[in-house]
Amino acid sequence: MKLKRTHTCGELTLSEVGKMVVVSGWVDNWRDHGGVFFIDLRDRYGKIQVVFSPEKGDLYEKSKKLRSEFVVSVRGKVQKRPEEAINPELPTGEIEIYAEELEVHNTSKTPPFELKDYVDVSEDLRLKYRYLDLRRTKLQKTLILRHQVAQLTRQFFSGENFLEIETPFLTKSTPEGARDFLVPSRLHPGKFYALPQSPQTYKQILMVSGFDRYFQIVKCFRDEDLRKDRQPEFTQIDVEMSFVEEEDVMNIVEKFMKFLFKEALNIELKTPFPRLTYQESLDRFGTDKPDTRFGLELREVTSIFKNTDFKIFKSVVEAGGYIGTLVVPEAVGYSRKELDELNKWLISMGAGGLAHIKFTNNTFEGGISKFLSGHEGEALKKELGLTQDAMIFVVADKRKEFAQTMLGFLRNHLGEKLNLIPGDVHHLHWTTEFPLLEFSEEENRYVARHHPFTSVKEEDMHLIDSEPHKVRARAYDLIYNGNEIAGGSIRIHKREMQEKVFQLLKMTPEEAREKFGFLMDAFEYGAPPHGGIAFGFDRLVMLLAKAASIRDVIAFPKTASAVGLMEQTPSEVDETQLKELHLKILKE
Amino acid sequence: MKLKRTHTCGELTLSEVGKMVVVSGWVDNWRDHGGVFFIDLRDRYGKIQVVFSPEKGDLYEKSKKLRSEFVVSVRGKVQKRPEEAINPELPTGEIEIYAEELEVHNTSKTPPFELKDYVDVSEDLRLKYRYLDLRRTKLQKTLILRHQVAQLTRQFFSGENFLEIETPFLTKSTPEGARDFLVPSRLHPGKFYALPQSPQTYKQILMVSGFDRYFQIVKCFRDEDLRKDRQPEFTQIDVEMSFVEEEDVMNIVEKFMKFLFKEALNIELKTPFPRLTYQESLDRFGTDKPDTRFGLELREVTSIFKNTDFKIFKSVVEAGGYIGTLVVPEAVGYSRKELDELNKWLISMGAGGLAHIKFTNNTFEGGISKFLSGHEGEALKKELGLTQDAMIFVVADKRKEFAQTMLGFLRNHLGEKLNLIPGDVHHLHWTTEFPLLEFSEEENRYVARHHPFTSVKEEDMHLIDSEPHKVRARAYDLIYNGNEIAGGSIRIHKREMQEKVFQLLKMTPEEAREKFGFLMDAFEYGAPPHGGIAFGFDRLVMLLAKAASIRDVIAFPKTASAVGLMEQTPSEVDETQLKELHLKILKE
Repeated sequence: MKLKRTHTCGELTLSEVGKMVVVSGWVDNWRDHGGVFFIDLRDRYGKIQVVFSPEKGDLYEKSKKLRSEFVVSVRGKVQKRPEEAINPELPTGEIEIYAEELEVHNTSKTPPFELKDYVDVSEDLRLKYRYLDLRRTKLQKTLILRHQVAQLTRQFFSGENFLEIETPFLTKSTPEGARDFLVPSRLHPGKFYALPQSPQTYKQILMVSGFDRYFQIVKCFRDEDLRKDRQPEFTQIDVEMSFVEEEDVMNIVEKFMKFLFKEALNIELKTPFPRLTYQESLDRFGTDKPDTRFGLELREVTSIFKNTDFKIFKSVVEAGGYIGTLVVPEAVGYSRKELDELNKWLISMGAGGLAHIKFTNNTFEGGISKFLSGHEGEALKKELGLTQDAMIFVVADKRKEFAQTMLGFLRNHLGEKLNLIPGDVHHLHWTTEFPLLEFSEEENRYVARHHPFTSVKEEDMHLIDSEPHKVRARAYDLIYNGNEIAGGSIRIHKREMQEKVFQLLKMTPEEAREKFGFLMDAFEYGAPPHGGIAFGFDRLVMLLAKAASIRDVIAFPKTASAVGLMEQTPSEVDETQLKELHLKILKE
Repeated sequence: MKLKRTHTCGELTLSEVGKMVVVSGWVDNWRDHGGVFFIDLRDRYGKIQVVFSPEKGDLYEKSKKLRSEFVVSVRGKVQKRPEEAINPELPTGEIEIYAEELEVHNTSKTPPFELKDYVDVSEDLRLKYRYLDLRRTKLQKTLILRHQVAQLTRQFFSGENFLEIETPFLTKSTPEGARDFLVPSRLHPGKFYALPQSPQTYKQILMVSGFDRYFQIVKCFRDEDLRKDRQPEFTQIDVEMSFVEEEDVMNIVEKFMKFLFKEALNIELKTPFPRLTYQESLDRFGTDKPDTRFGLELREVTSIFKNTDFKIFKSVVEAGGYIGTLVVPEAVGYSRKELDELNKWLISMGAGGLAHIKFTNNTFEGGISKFLSGHEGEALKKELGLTQDAMIFVVADKRKEFAQTMLGFLRNHLGEKLNLIPGDVHHLHWTTEFPLLEFSEEENRYVARHHPFTSVKEEDMHLIDSEPHKVRARAYDLIYNGNEIAGGSIRIHKREMQEKVFQLLKMTPEEAREKFGFLMDAFEYGAPPHGGIAFGFDRLVMLLAKAASIRDVIAFPKTASAVGLMEQTPSEVDETQLKELHLKILKE
C-alpha cells in the first residue's frame, strides 16, 4: 500500500478545502464528462466525488479504466465544487477531491445485481453473493444499528451491576419443546453434546452461585422446521436476577427499554408500561400479544343470544361457548364481494365462518340481521354502544379461546387493511398471568407454556392437583406494537416444587433426574428466589430498524431450509471425520 | 418474598447507622455467643454481621436454626459495633445489623467442601458442584474481572469505530490444522455443519463488504486431544481492519492494551511495544514467545568450535549445526546431582543432552572443560564476555532451531527456578516476520504456520517457488510475559495469490474451490487490502487475574477430556433423535 488513508469518504466538508488528503474505498459510480473523469468513492462512512483532470496525463489515462466496485485509494486536494455542481443531498456535496495520485488495490467483475437499496433480484441470489449484498447502504445501516443496540444493552446492564457471564455452547441434550442440534463427541463414542436452546439452566445455576445479576447477549439454537422469520441460530438478550419478584424484573426492563429507545432512536417512552393479564388480553384483543396501537376491541355478546332461535348461535350458547363481535365503522361500506372474501380468509385461518350485520341509520340489515329478534337488536345496540354506522362482525364457537383468537386475527387484518394503525407510534406493554400449562393434543399431556422452570402464583397453588389447567404462572411477556419481544418469569427455586412440575408434565422421576438432576441438586444447597427474562434480539433489532425480514438484521443468515448459500453449508464431510466420530450415515 | 432488599451486604457503613434496612444473602458463618446469635451474611458485594438478640423471642429462636449457606433476608437497624468488636478487615466492619425480622428463603445441605478460597479438594469435585465452587470469593472476583475486561474491550473498539458483527456458528467444515466439531443436519440428510474454529473467513468477507473495522468477542471450537490448559470451546477477541498494514494493526492493539491495563488494573504500559523478528527471537531466547522480563539470553558459539577435537561438537559443526550457550552466574554452585537432574529433564523435553562448564576464578572446570583447548577457552571468554563466576550450559545439535528451542526451554526453567523473573512486571512485545510455512513431517507437506490466508512479505515473493520455506509472512504475535496472547496477519486479498498459497499447501484446485471458493470469488469483486488479529480471551483474562488455570476464568469449563461434570455432558441421546438425523452409532 503506497497511499495511507487520512480521511473517510463521509467526513470531508468545506473546512478541509485546500488540504491534501487520502481517501480509500469503492468506485460507486463513474462518469466520463467530456475530458474530465469523475468517480464517486464510497466507504462505510459516506461518499465523496473525485475529479481526474486531463492535465494530469498518465493519472488521467489510468483513472479512465476505473469501473464500479474497483477498490482504490486517491491522494488529492480538497476543493470547493462549482456552485452548479453542489449536491445538497450528500454531506460531502459541497466539495470534491482533485486527484493527484491513484492506487488501485483491486479490480472487480461486474456484480450480478445492482448494489442499490431496492434491489429487484431473488433473495437467494443476494444471499449467495452476500459480500456484495452487504455493501448496500441500507443493510450496512441496519448492522450498524444492531451494533449500537448491542453496545447500549451492555452499557445499560453493566451500569445496573449485571455481570455478563458466558455460558457453554457444548451443553446437554434435554429436548423439551423444540429439537436440539446435536454435536457428536469424538472422545466419548456414542455420546453427544447439544447446542443450547437457551442458557436457562446455566443462568439459574449462576443465581444459585450468588452472582445476583446476570446478563448475556448470546446465540441460541433450535432445530425447527423453519418458518418464514425463524433462523436455526438466533441471538438472545438473556437476563436473570436474584431476590426479585415480577415487579422488579419489569422495572429494570422498562428502564432498559426507555434507555434504549432514547439512545438508539431518540424516542421517549413513558414508563411504567401498561399491564394486561392474559385473560384480559384475550377478552379484549383475541391474542396474548395484542397490537395496542389501535382500538377495535372484541366485545362478547354471548348472553344476548341466550334464547336465540338462530340455530348456529343456539348450539354454541348451549355448549357453553362464546359469541363475540368487532364493531368496525370503517367497514360499513364493504361490498358483498369484500365480505365474502373476508369470510373465506377467516375460514382459511381455521374459523368455522364469519358472520356480519350492517348497522346503518339505527337499523340492522344484511348478513344475519334476519335472525335478530327486536329484543336482541336492542340489547346489541346497548351492549355495543352503537351510535354510528358500522359493520358488525360476529364469530361464534364452542371453544371460547378459539373464537377469540379468530376475532384477534380479524382485528389485526382489518387494522392493517383499513389503515387504523398509526405510524411512528411505539406501544409497549406487558402481558401477565399466563396459564402455567397448556394441553398438547399431539402429545396427549400438559406441556409448559413458557418452560418447566416457571413458578406458580401463590394463590393458585391449591389448584395444582385438581385443576392444573387453571393454574396461573408467574410469567410475563413484553409486547411491542403487537410483537412479543421478550418473555420471562419468576423461577422455581425449591426441589419439591420443581419435581411437582416435572410430574405434571408427565416426566418420570428418572427422566427428571437424568436431565435436570444437577439443577434440582443445586436447589438443595441454598438457591435464592430468582427470576428473569429473555429478549429475541434479532426481532428487536428488526423492529427498531423497520427491516422487512429478520434476515436483513443478520450478517450471514440461513435460508428457510437452514442452508448457508454463500459458503454452501451444510456440506458433506470426509469419511475419516465420520469414522473418528464413530458414526455412519443411514441411507433412506 | 416478604422482605425486599434495600441494600447489598457490601455497601453499609457508619453513615447508615440508625437506618432500617433489608439485606439478602447466604449465611457465611454463624456463632452462638452465649445468648446472642450472630451470622455473617454474604452476597456478591460483601459480608455483613447480623445480630439476633434473645430480647426478640421467636425471632431469636428462629435464628438459632440458621446454618451455613441458608439463604435469608433480614430486616433490621444498622448499629455501630462496640469498639472491641470492630473488624478492620471488612468494609462493613464498623457496623452490624440488629435483626427485627427474618425470612428464610431456602435451607442448605452441608456443602461437600468448604467454600474458602484455598480448597483442598479434587478439581473434579469442585467442577461437579460448580454452583458451590462459584460461590468462592476468588472465582467470583475472577469472573467479575472477566466481565470488566469484556466490557472495556467493547468500549474501546466501539470508540474506535469498530463494529461488533455476529458471525455464524453453524458454518462449513474446512478442517485445516485442528479437527472441527460437526453438527449433523436433519433437514439435509448426510450433510453437516461445523462449529467455527474461528470467524476468519467471515470477517474477511465483512472487509470485502466494506465494513472497514470489525471486532467480536466470540466463542470458537476445536476438537483437539485436550492439553492441560485448552478447552474445546474458547473465547476470542477477533479484530479485522481494511486499508491497513502491519503497523496499523499493531498501533490499534497497543492503544487497546494500554487502555485495558490502565482501566482494568491501573497499570501504565509504555507504547510502542518492542518488536522482535522471529529470527532474532529464536537467536536470543530460543522461542518465538520469549519471556522478556529477564535476560539470560542465548549465545551462539558454533564458530569457536570449528576445529574442535571433541567428537560430539565436531559432528554438529560439520553438519552445519548449532552450538549455543546459556551463561548462568546464579547456577555456579550447582551440585553434580542438580546438574544431572537438569540434564535428565532436558532430555525428557527431547534434547540429546545438556553439557556444562563451570567458570570460576577465571578458569574452566568440570563438565566438558577437558575438551576445551586453550585457544577455544580464550575465545569463549571473549565471546561470552565472562567476567564473573558462572555455570555455562551448552546445547549442540545439527538442527539449529531445535537446539535453540531446547536452550529456550532451559532458559525458562532456570528463570523460574532461580527466581530471575521479577514479580508485578508487565512486558508486552511483538514477534514479527514469521516463516509463512512449516514442514509437517506427519503430513509430508508444508502447512501454514498461521493460517492459509496470511499474505507474504513483498520482498520474499521471489522465493515462493524456489525456496518456500524461506518466505516470511506478514504475521505478528503479541507476547505478554512469555505468553502468546494474540496473533494476526495482513491477509491475502487477491484470488491468484490465494490460489498460489493453497497450491503450496498441496491443496488441489478442486479442494480449494470446494472449501474456500466463496472467499476467492469474493476477492474478484473488489476486495480491499485488510488485516487483523485475534486474542485468546480466556488466556488474557487468566493472566490479568493471575489465575492458576484457564478453568478458573470460565464459569462452566470442561475437564481435560471435554466432559461437563456438573450437567453430565456429553450424554447419550434418544434413538428417535438419531433417526431424525439419519445417523447410526458404530460400535467399536
